[in-house]
Formats: sequence, C-alpha cells, structure tokens
Amino acid sequence: MTTDTLGNSNAGAAMGRSIPRVEARAKVTGRAEYVHNLRLPGMLYGRIHRSTVAHARITGVDVSAAQAMPGVYAVYTAADIRKLIPEPYFGPAFHDQPILAIDKVHYVGEPVALVLAADPHVADAAAQQIVVEYEELPAVFDEVEAMTSKAVVHEVLKPAGTFPDLKHLKDKRDTNVALDFHLRRGDVQQAFADADHVFEHTFRTQQVLHLPLEPFVTVADPAPNQLVIHTASQSPSFVRIEIARLLGWPETRVRVKVPYLGGGFGAKLYIKLEALTAAAALIAGRPVKIALTMEEQFYTLTKHATTLRIKSGVTRDGKITARECEVWWNGGAYADIGPRITQKSGFTAAGPYDIDHVTIDSYSLYTNLTPAGALRGFGIPQLVWAYESHTDMIAKALKMDPLAIRRINILREGRPQATGTLMRDAGIEPVLERLAERMTWEKKYDRGSGTMRRGRGIAIGFKASISPTTSMAIVNISADGSCIVYCSTVDMGQGSDTAMAQFAAEALGIPVERVSVVHPDTDVTPYDMATLGSRSTYHMGHAVKNAAEDARDKLLALAAEVGLSAETTPIPDIFRKKYGMQAGNIIGIGSFIPPYTPPEPGTGLTTDATPFWMIGATGAEVEVDTETGEFKVTRLVNLVDVGRPVNPAIVETQISGATIMQLGFTLSERMEFDAGQVTNASLADYKIPGIRDVPPVMENEAVDMVQKTGPFGAKGVGESGTFGVSPAIASAIDDAVGVRLTSLPLTAEAVYRGLRANAGKPLQD
Amino acid sequence: MTTDTLGNSNAGAAMGRSIPRVEARAKVTGRAEYVHNLRLPGMLYGRIHRSTVAHARITGVDVSAAQAMPGVYAVYTAADIRKLIPEPYFGPAFHDQPILAIDKVHYVGEPVALVLAADPHVADAAAQQIVVEYEELPAVFDEVEAMTSKAVVHEVLKPAGTFPDLKHLKDKRDTNVALDFHLRRGDVQQAFADADHVFEHTFRTQQVLHLPLEPFVTVADPAPNQLVIHTASQSPSFVRIEIARLLGWPETRVRVKVPYLGGGFGAKLYIKLEALTAAAALIAGRPVKIALTMEEQFYTLTKHATTLRIKSGVTRDGKITARECEVWWNGGAYADIGPRITQKSGFTAAGPYDIDHVTIDSYSLYTNLTPAGALRGFGIPQLVWAYESHTDMIAKALKMDPLAIRRINILREGRPQATGTLMRDAGIEPVLERLAERMTWEKKYDRGSGTMRRGRGIAIGFKASISPTTSMAIVNISADGSCIVYCSTVDMGQGSDTAMAQFAAEALGIPVERVSVVHPDTDVTPYDMATLGSRSTYHMGHAVKNAAEDARDKLLALAAEVGLSAETTPIPDIFRKKYGMQAGNIIGIGSFIPPYTPPEPGTGLTTDATPFWMIGATGAEVEVDTETGEFKVTRLVNLVDVGRPVNPAIVETQISGATIMQLGFTLSERMEFDAGQVTNASLADYKIPGIRDVPPVMENEAVDMVQKTGPFGAKGVGESGTFGVSPAIASAIDDAVGVRLTSLPLTAEAVYRGLRANAGKPLQD
Repeated sequence: MTTDTLGNSNAGAAMGRSIPRVEARAKVTGRAEYVHNLRLPGMLYGRIHRSTVAHARITGVDVSAAQAMPGVYAVYTAADIRKLIPEPYFGPAFHDQPILAIDKVHYVGEPVALVLAADPHVADAAAQQIVVEYEELPAVFDEVEAMTSKAVVHEVLKPAGTFPDLKHLKDKRDTNVALDFHLRRGDVQQAFADADHVFEHTFRTQQVLHLPLEPFVTVADPAPNQLVIHTASQSPSFVRIEIARLLGWPETRVRVKVPYLGGGFGAKLYIKLEALTAAAALIAGRPVKIALTMEEQFYTLTKHATTLRIKSGVTRDGKITARECEVWWNGGAYADIGPRITQKSGFTAAGPYDIDHVTIDSYSLYTNLTPAGALRGFGIPQLVWAYESHTDMIAKALKMDPLAIRRINILREGRPQATGTLMRDAGIEPVLERLAERMTWEKKYDRGSGTMRRGRGIAIGFKASISPTTSMAIVNISADGSCIVYCSTVDMGQGSDTAMAQFAAEALGIPVERVSVVHPDTDVTPYDMATLGSRSTYHMGHAVKNAAEDARDKLLALAAEVGLSAETTPIPDIFRKKYGMQAGNIIGIGSFIPPYTPPEPGTGLTTDATPFWMIGATGAEVEVDTETGEFKVTRLVNLVDVGRPVNPAIVETQISGATIMQLGFTLSERMEFDAGQVTNASLADYKIPGIRDVPPVMENEAVDMVQKTGPFGAKGVGESGTFGVSPAIASAIDDAVGVRLTSLPLTAEAVYRGLRANAGKPLQD
Repeated sequence: MTTDTLGNSNAGAAMGRSIPRVEARAKVTGRAEYVHNLRLPGMLYGRIHRSTVAHARITGVDVSAAQAMPGVYAVYTAADIRKLIPEPYFGPAFHDQPILAIDKVHYVGEPVALVLAADPHVADAAAQQIVVEYEELPAVFDEVEAMTSKAVVHEVLKPAGTFPDLKHLKDKRDTNVALDFHLRRGDVQQAFADADHVFEHTFRTQQVLHLPLEPFVTVADPAPNQLVIHTASQSPSFVRIEIARLLGWPETRVRVKVPYLGGGFGAKLYIKLEALTAAAALIAGRPVKIALTMEEQFYTLTKHATTLRIKSGVTRDGKITARECEVWWNGGAYADIGPRITQKSGFTAAGPYDIDHVTIDSYSLYTNLTPAGALRGFGIPQLVWAYESHTDMIAKALKMDPLAIRRINILREGRPQATGTLMRDAGIEPVLERLAERMTWEKKYDRGSGTMRRGRGIAIGFKASISPTTSMAIVNISADGSCIVYCSTVDMGQGSDTAMAQFAAEALGIPVERVSVVHPDTDVTPYDMATLGSRSTYHMGHAVKNAAEDARDKLLALAAEVGLSAETTPIPDIFRKKYGMQAGNIIGIGSFIPPYTPPEPGTGLTTDATPFWMIGATGAEVEVDTETGEFKVTRLVNLVDVGRPVNPAIVETQISGATIMQLGFTLSERMEFDAGQVTNASLADYKIPGIRDVPPVMENEAVDMVQKTGPFGAKGVGESGTFGVSPAIASAIDDAVGVRLTSLPLTAEAVYRGLRANAGKPLQD
C-alpha cells in the first residue's frame, strides 16, 4: 500500500522527513501536560525528611513536633508503610531499597519520614522539625575500596528476579559486590608475554547527575477500584508491575499515566517516588503529590563514578593483540539498574577494536553515596573515556598517528566482537573514516605558538542495545482513515511520538498528519519494557511497524471481503462498504522481542549480544593557554551511525543534545562530597552547560548507513553522541600541550598542574 | 479454559452471578466521575439564550447589553458559528438541526445565542439580556394535523446518510413527513370483509421526558493537537464522527471521553450539547462547559407523543385475522432518531400476535415542539399501550377473557412475525403463561364492592433489536493474569461495566474480580454504535466475548509455543516462560455485526428484522374509588425474557426501574403546552414517580429462558419492563369500574369523567 489511499498527495514518504514534532504546538503554547502541573481535589503535598548521615543505625525518630504543626495532615515513617506493605523493598535488580528507611540509613539524603499537608510550605517546614537519632556506622565511598572494605553497606540482598539475563544473581551476604561480570576470550597472559609492548593505564570518572529540568514528581490517586499514579517515569509498565507486587494487587488495579517528561536521561526509570507516593496516598486515603526540588535530585540518583584499568599488549607496528580491562562501578547505596549496566557495558569494555585476547572484569559495587543508575549511554561514555584515552596514549608512546592506530585495529563489519557476536550493520569504519574526512585529519594542522596552543583529538565508541526486552503496540484505524498509535514509549523530549507516527504512516501509506500517538497509560497502552538505552526507535519502532502492518493486512482483507481494491480505494470507502456507514475500526497488534543469547557463565561469551550496535565518534579541537592551563573547545564534530534517520531534524538535535550533555560531564560537572554529604547540591554550585558553553563550531552528522534489521532501516540515536566527547577533548589537550589527563572532569587546574609537572615544577597540593 | 488458571477458587462461574456492580464503591463514596464535576483551568461557562416563540423568522438579535456586562467573555450567535463551521447542521437521520438557530426558530426553547463567562451566574444573567426580534410564522403542534398542515416546519431537508437501513430518505421539500414506513402482509381489506367482527380504536400518548437526574452536560477542551470533549453521552463514537464531520477534521483529532452517566434513557444519544460546546471552545480558544438546568431538559428532548389507530378483523371465537395500524409520531422540530424509531417500531406495531393480514403505516412528523428522540423502548411502549388496550377492548366486546384471547392469537415460537421474520428464542408464550400463573389469573378474583372496586389487567409486548450496527471490543491480559476490557459501551446506571467484566471473565475462565473495564474514550476504546435499545448486553456482549476468546486462543497458542499446558499452568507462569520476566500482554480483538436484511421497499417485509426479540409483560391490580375516580395500583407483576441473566440482581433492578419509569408515564407525567410553550417545565410541576408512588406489591421476574444466539445465552433487558405497564393498568381500571381510557396519562379525573359518562351524567368540559 505505497499509494495514498486517502487521496492525499503527501502520503507514503513519512520516513526520513523532518516533519515538526507532533507536540511542538502544545509545548510552545504552554499546553503540554506535565505531572508538576497536576492538581487533584483534596490533594496533599508530601515532603521528605532525609538522612543527614551516610551510614547509621536509626535509634529514634521523633515526629511529634512535626505532627503538632497546624496544617499537618500526617507524618509517616517506615512503621506506617509496613502496616500497608509488610516487605516495602523495591528495585529492578535487587529488592534492596526501602520505601522509607528501615532501622538503618545507607546514604546522606535517604528518605526517612514523609510529611503530608494540604499546603506544601507547611509540609516543608514540618519535615524540618523531625528529629532522627543515629548511631553511625563505618562508611565506604570509593568503588575500589568497596571491593575489600570491612564497611558493608547491606548485610543481605534479595535478587528481584526481574531480568532473565541476570539469573546468576544470588542472595548475597556480607559483600559490597552486587554483580561481577567476567569475559574471557583467548589467552591474554600468553599474548602479553608475546607482545612487543604492554601498556597499562587507569582512568576515573566522577559522580554526575542526570538533572532533567523537570525534577522527579509523582501524584498518586487512591481511586475506589484502582490506584492511579501520574508520574514522570520512563517505565510506566515497570511501575505498574512493581507497585502491584508491593501491594499484592493484580496489575490492572494499578494504573500508571505518564504525560510529557521534561527530560529523563535514565533518571526516571524503575521506581523513584512512585512507591512512597502510592503508599502515602493509600494510607491517607487522599491524593498525594510528591515533587522534588532541584536540590533533592542530588539525593536521588547519580551516574556511576568509575575506576577503569586497561592493559594492552601491542606489536611494534601498533596492532593490539591482547587487552585486560577491570571496571569498578560506584553504585551508591542501592543497586538500581547498576548490575545490568555492569553486564551490558561489560560486553564492549575492550572498545571497538579487533583483539584476539580479551579479559574483562566488571564489578557493580555498593557504597554509601547517592544511588547510581542508567544515564544516557548506560555506562558506555565512561568506558569510551578510558579505552580511547588509552588508545591515544599507546599511539603516542609508539609515535603513531591516532587515526593510523585506529585504522589498524578497528573492528570491521562481519568480524567477531569481544563477546563473539559478529558485527553487522555497524558503521564503525565508515564513521571513523567520515570523521577523518570532516576533520581533514590527514592535512597539515596548525598547532599555534607562544602561549596559545592548538590541538585536536578523535575518539570512537560503540554500544550494544538492550536485550532481552519486549515491546508491544496497537494501531487503530478509524473509518475515515485516520489512525491512533498506542505504545508505552515515553516522549521525554527525544521526539518518540513523532517517530512512532512516522513509522505507522510509512507502514500504512497514509499521511503522517493523520496519525495520532497517545500517551503512555497502562490502562490504555500495552506493555513496553521501558524508554531507555536508545531502544525505542528500534524495539518499539518494530512493534509499531508490525502493528501497522497487521492493520494494513486486515484492511486489505476487509477490502477483498467487500470486493474493493485497497490499492485504489480510499480507506473511508472500504469501511463504508463494510459497515454501511462511517463506523468500525481496524485494530492491528504488533510486538517485538529481539533475538538474544545470554552470555555464557564463566566466559561471558555470546553469539547474540545485541540486536544492533550504536556507533558514535567525536573529533575535537581545543585552544590551550600554556600560562594558565585554561582551554576552550573550539570545534566538535559529532558523527553517528543511526541507520536510516527517521526524522533528520530530530536526529540532529539528539546528536547535539547528547554531545552538549557529555560536554558538561567532561568539563565542569562533578558532585563534591564530604563524608558522603554532597557539598554542591544546587545549580549555582554544580555547573551544567549553558548556551555559552557550546563550542563555536559544532557539526553533527548521521553517517549514511542503513540498519538492515531495523524498522525501515532505522536504529536508536539518543546516546551515540555522548561516546567520544571526553576522550577526544582530552587527547586534543594532550596534542596541544602534552598534558594527558586521566580523570574527569578536565579542568584548567588539572592542565596547569600538568604543564607545571612537564616543566619539572610540579605544584604541591 | 473452564478451569481456573490463576489458582483461584471462584473462577469460571462469572455468568449468572449477582456480583456487586464494579462501580458500587466509587458511587457510594462519591468518587465516581461525572462531567458535571469536571473543571478545567481557564474554563468558561456557557449559558444559552433560547427562543420564546414556536415558529418564527429571526429579524434581529441584539447582544450588545449582554456583551457589555462585566465578566462576559463573549456572546456567540449562528453568524459566529458559521465562521468556524460553514454548514453547522447536525442530526443522525437528517442534518436538520443548527448549532444555534439560523434565520428561523422552530420551537420554543431552541438555542439562539450563547454567552460565555468565567462565572456561570454572570453568563446566566447576560443570557437574559439578549433581545431577539421575531416575525412569527404559522405553527403546527399536533402530529396528525402535521400530515396535512400548511404550516411546514422545514422547507428543505438533507438526509444524513448515517443509517444504511434508511437509504430511502431523500431530500425532502414542503412536507412535515420525515419518514413514512409501510408494511403490507396478506390482504387486509378482504380479511376485514370476511371477518365476523371489525373493531377500530384510536389511542394517544402524551409528550414526556427522559429526565435523567444528571441533566445534559458537555465540556470541550481545545487542546493543541486535539479537541477533547468530555460529555455525558450514550454514543461517544457517534459524537466523534459527527463533530469531526462538522469541523472537516480527521476523526482522531476529536477525542470524546465519557465517565459515568447519571442516567440516559435515550436522551443522551447523538449530538445534544456537544456541537455547541465544541464550537464555542474552539472560537474562544478556552475550555467551555455547558451544563443544562433541570428546566432546560424540557427544551432539549422529549419522547414522541403519538396517535395510534388500530383496526382488527376478528372471528366470533376471538381469532384475529387482520389488522390495520396507523401511527403518527410527533417528532417535534428536529427529526433526531425519530425516523429510525418509526421504522423499527413499525416492524412490531401489530403486536405479538399471529395475524395473517397486516398493514402498518407509520409516519415520522415534524411539529413545532421540543424535538423527540429515543426513550427507553424506542417507541414500543406507545405501541403496546395501543395494541394491548385494543386487545382487551375486543375481548370485552366478545365477552372473552383477556388471557383466553391472547392464548388464541399469541405469536408462537417458529411462526413468522408481521415482517415475515420467524420468531426464534422469543419467550412470548412462556412469559404470558408465567404471568397468568403469578397473577393466579384463572382463580376467582374479588372485585370489591361499594365505592371501592378492584380490577386487574394483563398486557404483553415485544420489540425488535437494533440492526445493522457494529460493536468492537479489545481484551488485554497482563502478565499476572489480570485483564482489561476496552469497549465504548457507556455505563449509565444499567450496570454494563459489570456485565462486560462478567462476559470477559466467563470467556477467559478467570475470576471476575481480576477484570477491569475502562470508560469510553474514543482515543482508547474502539468503535461502538451507541449504548441504546438494550443492545449492549447482546451486541457488545458478543464483541467482548469474541475479544476474550481471541485472547484466550492466543494464550493457548502462547502456552503451546513455550511447551506448557494452558489448562494446568497459571497464566503468570505462561508469560514468564515466554518473556523471561513479568512482561508483555495478550491482546484479543472482537467485533460483532448482527445479520440483518433491510425491509423490502413497499412491503416492509424482511426475513431478518432483528438479531433477537425482547419480551415484556405486566400484570396490574388496581383499587378504584367509584365516587372520585381516584385509583391506586396495588400490585404490579413484571415478567421479561432476558435469555439467561448475566447478573440476576442487576436484571431485577433493570426490570423494576423500567417499570417505575413507565408508571410515571402512565399515571402522572405530561408536558403541558400553550402555543408550543411548556407550562410545567420544572420537577415541581411535572411529577415523576417517587418512592411512595411505587406499588406496595411489585414482583419482577426474568422468566427461565436462553437466547441461543446470545453471548452465553443472554440478551438485553433495559426496556422490556416498560412494555406492558400502561395497558395493564388501563385494563385493570376498566375491569374494576368499566371505564376504558384511551389516552395517557391515566388520571383520576379521566376515570371520574368515565364513571359519570357511564352513569349517563357526563361532565361538561
């Protein structure tokens, strides 16, 4: 059905068109719905009293002053929650996180009590009147120390059993290691012995935040037959299942509705405020809203700080023969999705290189810091930071060109990746070559002179997608030929509503303007694992395409049944012939479960690690002041393989958005801690990129590729822009002034220290 | 799958159980949602200025005083509407009704202008400041006069083309006849000539109102990409299609949401306030609410007043050989669904009797009164009133017992009804016999003495269901085995949500408590023609059953795919085996289009008039005071054939509710008119039954039957209780004191006049 069955000339070519986002008008007119705007009759506001210590036994909670304040409706502690939910622990990998702290606190900022009041200011004031007595316990903050520390964060851990690929999680006792992933390929030690050179470096990344401009917010409404949860969540299906599990209810008695999100970036996955808000609403018998402040985001979820050690065996002409990687993930006080990040990113920790002998050891660790979760890239930016810095350090040692060493080692189409999975539709080489071209890498480069030096760097990374997961969609065609797409993908700014409309229009051969997409609502839209890991375009795209094709097949069958040609008859005429009037619907159903083979226990090998590969590369140019160490990024070239772009304009904003976000993590963002207490928990003290921090030249390009297994050749793009930014800039600095930084963020002070050290005049701390 | 796949002991037997209504808790706790409770940010209230004359040209509209009132946001007339909608005429049979009066008004109370204000009291006051100048035209109010009157209500009429069975509607000019239905069976004139006796009587029914305790109300919200209409409607799918047609938009740009209704009874079908509210909201660019007062219901929709002439040829032993029926339906100023009532009820106007020679002529007429529409029974109570009174008048003339004459003539199973359609699963005889039994009809009856006389009467009626129509449903099973039913059937108090949950549970073999039913929402629930004519249990019941069976089949297939037995494996385990975790959905789709053959033009004959028959009978006992004519109904026995009851407790309330409603139409309700002006437009002056008006003995029974073609043997019940009430009471009065009344309502004054006339001392008017 490639011809237009509605007599409309702009049908068909929905794929690849930069149509405006479907929500553009709602957003610019201020009419787009967000949970923060929602008020329900009789609604109470909840404010959280949080732990002031990092690790302690709770010896007393005095809520009397708070309860006595005029206007306070109720104050709840864990004891109240447990009357409703005897085992109030949640989490996607382990049921480790209590709704409110039980007996112990595990990090500074952990929720200990909740105040409800009709006036949020009253609730706020009352929350400050709560007095908690603590008996402090030894705490651990560093991820490497946590491996062996006597300070154990959790004594016992119950696996959630959610992820079939993490079945080897067992009840854990007296360890801070939540999950350890090991990959063994070839014989690394022999290869090191045989190598001309062996290089080993250690890199670190810092704690950073997702910081969506819309902080966490949930409203729970205890309706008579159903608990309705309005929440800024990336995973409505998971929230429904998890809340139903906590309450012991059927899934369908919990309804989760998600309007637009003001950003997510992985923060709004799994359970955040939902369990606390739901429990409070059910106990109070009133709708409850909990909306965090910007500051409270610092106490809710971070990105994993990491320590990464890489050791490579290399021939004298630059061929990498063996690699050993160790990665320690600082998961904070609760595992959240950390174990899955540890495993999934473990697949690619050795980088996009063709290496015969590889070992990878990846550890998910508990510490007494804010819990860490998935943040745009699912651990990959940390890995790329390490392995691409390492690549350039080897090149420099061997006096090789950074492009040349990559050309020797790059993982080419059809070759096995470290897990053993073959590379298919993975544009690693094309993206690298296109980056060289755009950077005019092989032409002479002016490195400046005097106190102003220039340098350039390149970096490339790759990522496996999420699997196993399930996505489902429904496409409903009305009698006039317009249609609605039902899916639980959350449009959090990435433009998924628009993309899904384009997929459905393409499959049905109708104008995209006649396609509507409804918001996730577990009573309305079918199951989807979550909106994360750049999976929606590919996974949900397939489900929507399958649903639309199912609807198209039913439409063809209907046309045949009533003796009409679906190729030449407008859709409304087919319906009218069947139903005698403008009536009826055609309902198509689609689902998608990518093929997946879990890694073999012990070796970590699998022939089917991922349904598709994401590739991202960055070229950076910098100017460094040799007197002060101050530097600026003057040019960023960001290239990605997105297969065939669904909507080029949106793809471009995804690349630039990811790049700028990673720029913040590279140059300025860092949570500062003092005994586990965040000391810069505000946007005044924690610097995210503003418009003036964007490099004066920024070029974003989706390299001409097709993901043959993707829906209409497409694949995800939300994260690929983050991969290469940090190492490209670090290498550019090294290229300019010979200072190699191995810890993020890259600061003028660190460059200055490097310049002083190079000059034989190191600064004293 | 009759065994419980959830390990729950109460699965399976969902059908036939008197489970509490699913909305019971929401209603008794005041949490059930109604449109009247809905307020949106920035919402304006609309108040309507209405015509004060019955038929006139509008020569001027002065809105300046209203517009000048502080707080008035806007005043709109037809001119404003036409800027948005050039042809702003709506209606299910004809596009005859303007959103606001254009050039002419056609009845007292017709909307002429709309005032919008943030404060409804301001809007109300301003609406009264509008001055309209009229040039009055001759008017017609009586349905029989309208046949030949020179006062023509509409000069030209455009058929809507909505109903395929009314394709013979043509553009009409200079006639008040909107539709005429004719049935010709056998040779009535010859049979009259051959008959021993010929009887002819004429009967009348009055204008009455639906009067749901929730008056009409609509909120329209002009959201950025979609117009959202929250409305108390029985036909959300129709509202979407009709509003989209008026605006020239795709269906999916209009979203219609219907929460619970505080009664409908046929009033809230098709377009009522929706077009005006939607147009006002779009012009104003703000949400608009229009909520009518109780008084305004008198100016919105009535039940057809009718004149019915019946003539029968009868043998001396009581066999009816021929019948001629003429019915004039007073449709008021706009046709609404009148033409379809005229046709559908025309099928059965000759009554549930086996008569070889029948003519039926049924006329849908325009007059200058409030428009008339469908009201609980779709015209059947008016017909039963006439043909059952006529039956008893024949019996009395022949000195036969009312039961005996019915036994001779009753339409038995398998025999052709007047249209030629064979009677199948129609419990006419069983219901009649059960009525005789419960009334102990053949035992001696004490008729009292002195001034207090007793009498009894019986009556039986039947009705064809609606066809052709389409119903669609979706059943979605979650991974834990709970499920959701999606259908556009409106629960307006009749308990349809509960019934649909029972159908799905029965088909799936799961406990009914694990089934949820979502409210109609055209973005969520698939197409359904409307909730009317007792069709939902049968039509939507089939669609839900089909959807549940489709889901069940998919579940069986899924179980087989993963090597499990669906008979013995709990549903959650099947999902877990397939998806590796608690994930996924199984989505079943069902639709139902009953077989239907339209009546042959000319003869009105069809072998397939209806998918099922509804049967209702009433036995009444009265006490009459011979000095005053005052009487009271002392006992009502109401028997219906509902096939197999889905939920006996709800069936019982449907029978009693229908009976009491018809009791109001029989004894007290009548709209009084003076030159087209309603003179008793309030509940103080228009008397509906209260609890003290319910007869002291009322017995309601669903006779033991099975509708073989119905879903699990069920069929509709909402109207059957209305059929026999009026003629049974009238015959009981005649039985008691020998006064035969032929016009409704039956009043003490009429009885007194009859008593005086019988005594040879008639009252002068």
